[in-house]
Amino acid sequence: MKPESFHRLANRMANIVPFEVMEISSAARKLEREGHDVIHMEVGEPDFRTPQPIIDAAIAALNSQPMYYSSAIGMRPLREAIADFYQSKYGVTVSPDRILVTSGSSAALLMTMGVLLNSGDEVLMADPGYPCNRHYVHAMDGVPKSIPVGPEHAYQLAASHIEAHWGPRSAAALVATPSNPTGTLVSDAELRAIHKAVTARGGALIVDEIYQGLTYGVEPSTALAIADDIFVTSSFSKYFQMTGWRLGWAVVPAAYVREFETLAQHLFISPSAPAQYAALAAFDARTIEIVEERRREFKARRDYLMPALRELGFKIAVEPEGAFYIYADCSAVADDSFAFSQRLLQEAHVALTPGRDFGTNHPEKHLRIAYTDTIGRLQEAVRRIAAVLSK
Amino acid sequence: MKPESFHRLANRMANIVPFEVMEISSAARKLEREGHDVIHMEVGEPDFRTPQPIIDAAIAALNSQPMYYSSAIGMRPLREAIADFYQSKYGVTVSPDRILVTSGSSAALLMTMGVLLNSGDEVLMADPGYPCNRHYVHAMDGVPKSIPVGPEHAYQLAASHIEAHWGPRSAAALVATPSNPTGTLVSDAELRAIHKAVTARGGALIVDEIYQGLTYGVEPSTALAIADDIFVTSSFSKYFQMTGWRLGWAVVPAAYVREFETLAQHLFISPSAPAQYAALAAFDARTIEIVEERRREFKARRDYLMPALRELGFKIAVEPEGAFYIYADCSAVADDSFAFSQRLLQEAHVALTPGRDFGTNHPEKHLRIAYTDTIGRLQEAVRRIAAVLSK
Repeated sequence: MKPESFHRLANRMANIVPFEVMEISSAARKLEREGHDVIHMEVGEPDFRTPQPIIDAAIAALNSQPMYYSSAIGMRPLREAIADFYQSKYGVTVSPDRILVTSGSSAALLMTMGVLLNSGDEVLMADPGYPCNRHYVHAMDGVPKSIPVGPEHAYQLAASHIEAHWGPRSAAALVATPSNPTGTLVSDAELRAIHKAVTARGGALIVDEIYQGLTYGVEPSTALAIADDIFVTSSFSKYFQMTGWRLGWAVVPAAYVREFETLAQHLFISPSAPAQYAALAAFDARTIEIVEERRREFKARRDYLMPALRELGFKIAVEPEGAFYIYADCSAVADDSFAFSQRLLQEAHVALTPGRDFGTNHPEKHLRIAYTDTIGRLQEAVRRIAAVLSK
Repeated sequence: MKPESFHRLANRMANIVPFEVMEISSAARKLEREGHDVIHMEVGEPDFRTPQPIIDAAIAALNSQPMYYSSAIGMRPLREAIADFYQSKYGVTVSPDRILVTSGSSAALLMTMGVLLNSGDEVLMADPGYPCNRHYVHAMDGVPKSIPVGPEHAYQLAASHIEAHWGPRSAAALVATPSNPTGTLVSDAELRAIHKAVTARGGALIVDEIYQGLTYGVEPSTALAIADDIFVTSSFSKYFQMTGWRLGWAVVPAAYVREFETLAQHLFISPSAPAQYAALAAFDARTIEIVEERRREFKARRDYLMPALRELGFKIAVEPEGAFYIYADCSAVADDSFAFSQRLLQEAHVALTPGRDFGTNHPEKHLRIAYTDTIGRLQEAVRRIAAVLSK
């Protein structure tokens, strides 16, 4: 309900709804202030601090460099470092000219929608999916066309979905791999087929690689290996554990670089200078050693948590191979995941995210569980959930 | 011209045009790489480095705090510090609940347009004016209604403009005080009259106070003293010299806080954590002493430059009382300010911004001159311009 005191309110705001996870987090912090020990598995943020070499690089820059605006698309050495990383880690040659450093992948996705969409244009995307992806589209008065996807497609879009759901107002498809909330991947073969289906229809393919690098038992890959007309967004937040710095990047088709640059000049001026100096150390061997060690720790947590959750009665139809989420079907133990998440918070002091945040495809059956705490704490969470379920 | 290789390009991109100043800056950097000494008076950025107490606070936080996401609307202590500053410096009581920390005032203005405007809604604003302000409106498919303003209104909107130009699709008016590019202010009395005219028509008043604090011979003020239904945007960039950190804030009417918070969650996740920790030191007495000393230095530069420019034949119809810009009419010495700015760059190695960036109200007659270098360098710039003019 909108208070009457609004003079004006844009229609788009009716589509832009709060994150449920923020409500859960607020309630969790309230419990903590009351002295309770809450286990946080609700927020999409690694528990690890930013690696020390990145912190050290920031401090060195603060002690020596002025913190002026950079170029709107980022400092050239950082764009080159990202290109080098694509070459050395993924074996893919990407010109630094096509790489734009952004204020988080949020800015990259917002600009992508701004450059591509007219009012009413549709973007096909998977449901369940990351809620912001819908909202970047809403912000530009586009229409997110959420396609229900299930375990048979690893909760991801497939080329067959493009063929079945593409319409006259469809302009783009967005694929997130690894996915939030499901942790599942799109195979290279399927991504090629999606790319073919989208471009054959005159559309643009957007691939969100924000969790790139965080895969378990699967070699990480990039859509940039497939074609040079894909819009790829990425981030320093997850694999490099730089969430609060707000730094990401986009790789765009060459013809669009100037459009993105112009939009970036006006909407953002430039990405954060301290964050860019810091990120120059993200690709150092010492940093990679730290984040790879942490990736192995994430894998160990996942490997502990999956069977433990199944033992509790949760169904996990597709093994998550990336990010740090398990998307669990809790319908065998609870009627409604939203009420259940509130009960778990109040009775077990375990914070989880209900399916509601991720779409309308049976959200009441699902919870997103982030393994963003130590195995010891995850074990404690499982004990507490078991206690609630045995009541 | 759009390359044919675009699959898709949003119509709004036709309205989103590059900054001329970026072209000038690029050409200036090219000259520098060739070994020339360029005097930079083109970019809207203080030459002063971020004050040391702010740097120190950032380093202390980097050494002690994790750099996680903050609340989408910023850390509570920073929102409270901003409220305290309004109280102590401006004598205005503002609830921290109405203050949202943002990724620069860019994010604040983009969200303001996002929350207020439907496609086709007009925002009245002064021409000449800061180009991004038009583009935040374009980004949301609104229509910037630029109103030519001249020296008789100190290059600012007046209530009479609202009365004359308000139409059925007008939704808001935007006032920037001090103004970029003119450095002029709107008096409190005129701002009250504008507020009355806008709200009487069911519109929203947006006041851009990004240069707040940088006034010369005039006490700084805030629109928040006038009414609590004004949308105010502000920044740590200019008065506090934190440009590259990308941190600003918005103060919004109470009924809108939740809407902004929801939009911020989705479009930005949160403002930069390192920047927020740094900015906590912006209101310290030691920082204020530094920035007030620099403000006096800006005043001394302005006081040198105005008569010197007039002696060269530039006309300055209204004495700028804020920001760090002089908006000079160069029509007595050059036919076209764009060609003239290019000539000054190539022949005198002095970089200035041509009027074109700021609208269509006689841009060919005007230059924006930023006094963002020492008086010694400004003197050298004046000597060089004189030499070009005497050729």
